[in-house]
Amino acid sequence: MRIDVVTIFPEYLAPLDVSLVGKACAKGLLDVHLHQLRDWTYDVHKTVDDTPYGGGPGMVMKPEPWGLALDAVLEQGESAAAPVPRMIVPTPSGRPFTQDLAVELAEEPWLLFAPARYEGIDRRVLDEAATRMRVDEVSIGDYVLAGGEVAVLVMVEAVARLLPGVLGNAESHRDDSFAPGAMANLLEGPVYTKPAEWRGREVPPITVSGNHGAIARWRRDEALRRTSAHRPDLIGRIDPAAVDRKDRALLAELGWVERDGRFHRADPPVAD
Amino acid sequence: MRIDVVTIFPEYLAPLDVSLVGKACAKGLLDVHLHQLRDWTYDVHKTVDDTPYGGGPGMVMKPEPWGLALDAVLEQGESAAAPVPRMIVPTPSGRPFTQDLAVELAEEPWLLFAPARYEGIDRRVLDEAATRMRVDEVSIGDYVLAGGEVAVLVMVEAVARLLPGVLGNAESHRDDSFAPGAMANLLEGPVYTKPAEWRGREVPPITVSGNHGAIARWRRDEALRRTSAHRPDLIGRIDPAAVDRKDRALLAELGWVERDGRFHRADPPVAD
Repeated sequence: MRIDVVTIFPEYLAPLDVSLVGKACAKGLLDVHLHQLRDWTYDVHKTVDDTPYGGGPGMVMKPEPWGLALDAVLEQGESAAAPVPRMIVPTPSGRPFTQDLAVELAEEPWLLFAPARYEGIDRRVLDEAATRMRVDEVSIGDYVLAGGEVAVLVMVEAVARLLPGVLGNAESHRDDSFAPGAMANLLEGPVYTKPAEWRGREVPPITVSGNHGAIARWRRDEALRRTSAHRPDLIGRIDPAAVDRKDRALLAELGWVERDGRFHRADPPVAD
Repeated sequence: MRIDVVTIFPEYLAPLDVSLVGKACAKGLLDVHLHQLRDWTYDVHKTVDDTPYGGGPGMVMKPEPWGLALDAVLEQGESAAAPVPRMIVPTPSGRPFTQDLAVELAEEPWLLFAPARYEGIDRRVLDEAATRMRVDEVSIGDYVLAGGEVAVLVMVEAVARLLPGVLGNAESHRDDSFAPGAMANLLEGPVYTKPAEWRGREVPPITVSGNHGAIARWRRDEALRRTSAHRPDLIGRIDPAAVDRKDRALLAELGWVERDGRFHRADPPVAD
């Protein structure tokens, strides 16, 4: 997969040389190209921003450098297998970045990230880019960052670990929080390793019982408990047809009732 | 604010020297201490992980190095103003990181981040830490990363920009997506800057009209349209008592109806 990033802070992307993503680059599974947006400015101050039309605080990124940068990246990266990239613009106003979107992006041969600073990029840049390639505005969460660069790090890491050959153990996707399958919509419960006792605290006896069926059941119970406590919204997304009798008993104990094809909090009662 | 990070990849935190967070450190508003977890291992391989009790794929971070690292950080950083830190463990199983939580963390004098790799940290480390300080497990979004380091970058950046003296223009918080006030729960609309025409595309005439009331109304309409398109869940969180007649008319046009004290999609009809 080829990845291009256009930014005024290419040095912020240094973590792409570290750890899993760095190894994926070293193995040739990822081909990352960083571009300094200011290389496409032609004034002595290398200006990339100006005041917003309509007034208000903050600055807006000018269209000219972005337009020229995108022209250059599209020309440099073009190949028969990937004539144009898919463009991703990180912004809190975008569609949410989810594991499903990470899986979708991992299928693309070429991604182009355009992280903004200040109040964002002049809208016409995205409108014009959308005539040449697919453009998605994507938000990694409901919080405000100083710029889109760290969101690029998040998305590249989430996508890179899904590429074939990047993770050593193919199995270790299986029980991920948000992975499809039996644990879909459930958060992972606690994990333990040696020693069996540490600072007077023992691991739960079930984990050393050798009873694999009971351990699997305990893990699922812990996942249900944690999801109910931290992310009740995810319990609401569980398909009641996909839960077994023991799941159902535990959910009832945790205060969930099934109604109209999904689970609801039993207390307080919802007016119908 | 003092920030400590214990990690096996301190070099991943290099972006903390860049841009806004780097400037905040240079000004003395932030005091960041990075710690290599492996410094608290005592075997020749500096081992930090082992196989999980109960079986399964992946590795779990051992309790001993973490326990010793936390002991050392607590002793080093202790002061009269901040006797213990608030500990933040990034994990997809945590409570969601939101702008409200960023605002809350920005009030703390001392934060300690414990980003995990592999399948996570032995649970007993968090249980024991919780007897000494407040511990929050926090998720930056519904996707799986290779480790917690990039989540630390996200949280530190979101918190740092809220510290007094960090952002140049105090006003530029005001219209942030997710900021409290008139734009609460609304995504920001498009922005434009000079030139008025670029590659045959003109800025919307309203933005150069000089009519500030009309511009404010246009911005709010654009914010409502974008929120309805990208984040219908946020429209559901708007307090109908807080919207004016024009908001209400636009929401109706976008297919939203008020019922039981909140807005719902008019189509398809919800069974009552």
